[in-house]
Amino acid sequence: MKASTIDALAREAAASARVINLGGGLPAEAQFPRRKLAACFLRVLAARGSPGLQYGWPEGQRSLRARIAERLRARAPSVDVTADDVIVTNGAQQAIALAVQLLVPPGGGIGVEEASYPAALDLFRSRSLVPRRLGPGLVCYVMPTLGNPTGGAISDRDRALAVKDGTWIIEDDAYGELRFAGPVAPLLGARPKRCIHVGTFSKTLCPGLRVGWMVVPPSLRRRALRLKQGDDLQASSLAQAVVDDYLAHDDFEARLVVLRRYYHRRATALARALRRALPSWSFAFPEGGFCLWIDTNARVDELDLLRLAVKEGVSFDVGSAFQAFPDEEAPTRLRLCYSAATPARFEEAARRLARAWRRVPKSRV
Amino acid sequence: MKASTIDALAREAAASARVINLGGGLPAEAQFPRRKLAACFLRVLAARGSPGLQYGWPEGQRSLRARIAERLRARAPSVDVTADDVIVTNGAQQAIALAVQLLVPPGGGIGVEEASYPAALDLFRSRSLVPRRLGPGLVCYVMPTLGNPTGGAISDRDRALAVKDGTWIIEDDAYGELRFAGPVAPLLGARPKRCIHVGTFSKTLCPGLRVGWMVVPPSLRRRALRLKQGDDLQASSLAQAVVDDYLAHDDFEARLVVLRRYYHRRATALARALRRALPSWSFAFPEGGFCLWIDTNARVDELDLLRLAVKEGVSFDVGSAFQAFPDEEAPTRLRLCYSAATPARFEEAARRLARAWRRVPKSRV
Repeated sequence: MKASTIDALAREAAASARVINLGGGLPAEAQFPRRKLAACFLRVLAARGSPGLQYGWPEGQRSLRARIAERLRARAPSVDVTADDVIVTNGAQQAIALAVQLLVPPGGGIGVEEASYPAALDLFRSRSLVPRRLGPGLVCYVMPTLGNPTGGAISDRDRALAVKDGTWIIEDDAYGELRFAGPVAPLLGARPKRCIHVGTFSKTLCPGLRVGWMVVPPSLRRRALRLKQGDDLQASSLAQAVVDDYLAHDDFEARLVVLRRYYHRRATALARALRRALPSWSFAFPEGGFCLWIDTNARVDELDLLRLAVKEGVSFDVGSAFQAFPDEEAPTRLRLCYSAATPARFEEAARRLARAWRRVPKSRV
Repeated sequence: MKASTIDALAREAAASARVINLGGGLPAEAQFPRRKLAACFLRVLAARGSPGLQYGWPEGQRSLRARIAERLRARAPSVDVTADDVIVTNGAQQAIALAVQLLVPPGGGIGVEEASYPAALDLFRSRSLVPRRLGPGLVCYVMPTLGNPTGGAISDRDRALAVKDGTWIIEDDAYGELRFAGPVAPLLGARPKRCIHVGTFSKTLCPGLRVGWMVVPPSLRRRALRLKQGDDLQASSLAQAVVDDYLAHDDFEARLVVLRRYYHRRATALARALRRALPSWSFAFPEGGFCLWIDTNARVDELDLLRLAVKEGVSFDVGSAFQAFPDEEAPTRLRLCYSAATPARFEEAARRLARAWRRVPKSRV
């Protein structure tokens, strides 16, 4: 009931020009390289044999897989990955879904961070997996390089728990390349044999293409391909060919530098507006990514707050969606995305949030 | 072991210009509307707000869903479907995968026709489902309008078994619009409440876009969307927008008329070549689709035959991949696709097949 109300409010907020949407975690449309992508499409469509329009193999196109592997190797000398280790997926989400199918039996436990990616948590629950605190003997799903919603690296304690010998790791690196100071080494380098590494072009290029990937150790490759084929045969030939062509023609490193600066500026602007309008809230300034993970330092009904906020003309993501282990006594949290809304509206968005916050009943914590 | 050998041979055949590939079930590249698709891309990329590049909702874009529903309603007066009943998927394969997740518990039985679609059969087995003969009390997966590999409508007996009261039907209509004499009414019209209908643009437009759909009754819609979101969030925004734009600008009915004639001519050409070169084989001339379902009227080791054929320079799909209930005593079958190879090479392909057939050891049946 609550989930469908939140979904309805999110849809209302997204559809209304009146509402400043700080929810959803969308990348900035202004950064979609539309003209360059158009050129890629025309080249791909003109290519002999139309590999972009025909069926392909379940693992994806070799040239793109080779580029993904090369980019991963450039992240750290310890990363030893070739095209043969990569499977192209329909976004990072499918890579996560395949990874849990490979590693966790139905009804099994899966270790997660306190605050984690909602679509992964929902996937786990819909597959009857039980989210548990990170610990020995558990397959762990973590975002070590840059967390969503935390905007930071995994804590040393959680990292140590996740890499304990004997446990498999699903490393979700969706935001790793958007760390403002540049990416850090993925866990993949430290644990090549017991790590499924997940990445995506959704945040760095555009999500509408749905091109993600998973790096799977040889021991799991055959099963992974069979599951991928069973799920949807293959990732879009066209989207793969377009991304491959894009990487061949654009300076992707230069693009990432621009994106990091761009989102860093937006993070700074939203943080400033919030500190002014809502000084009782706290948050760690993010190391990268798309959002601020807010601690309101008070306990409220988050659905009431969301309703009031949408009425005021601003929207956000409720904290409970990210919380693997709900705690009725803990302060209310929420995620505010600076990635997609116009910074010119951040001050106004913060004022609207503050008005909603003043009106919602609070209990001290 | 056998599966991976077949896969290796299929890949070798597909990669070699020397081999005439009658396997794979690919649509004809010559029929991909490359120029029109390029125009669609440019319009989609220029659209305000770039909905083709941004994230979308799990059910897919409304305009495309409305067009899919409209096309289904045009198939038969009994089909009562609106945009709200349609979920856009990453090809028909994902629709089948979601449908069995919705309807069949792990380890459960699923009713299938004697000869069925290999990627569905493999999906069922990889999910620990047990293919069974059609019958009461079983969820049934069928291709009633046009079978793959049979090229014909479902038999009256199987149809009666599949529509028995109380059983759910997964209706795979992937080839329904490519029936040479025009499409027939889908089962969906007869059983709106207990039918998940599956369709795709892969055969009629191009497979590289990966745009398919499922029609789900209201009772299952919420669960279906949750599963879809868990699996990969959503179908490609870009591919959806392109198909929607294509349907808005092209006369798709006229395109289908052209495609039916085109594949009908190819079917006729391959059938003629085979009757001449391999008179001991038999097959029913297809009512539509991409292939001939051959009965060799003898028993051979199909892997030996495939090896010999690839050596001779021709490839096919082994019959066992389509057979839900393998029978070691039954004559060997194989699928020959006329859809993608050049008809100018059909005579030569048939001669090469005949040479391989002469050399393979046979046991009478």
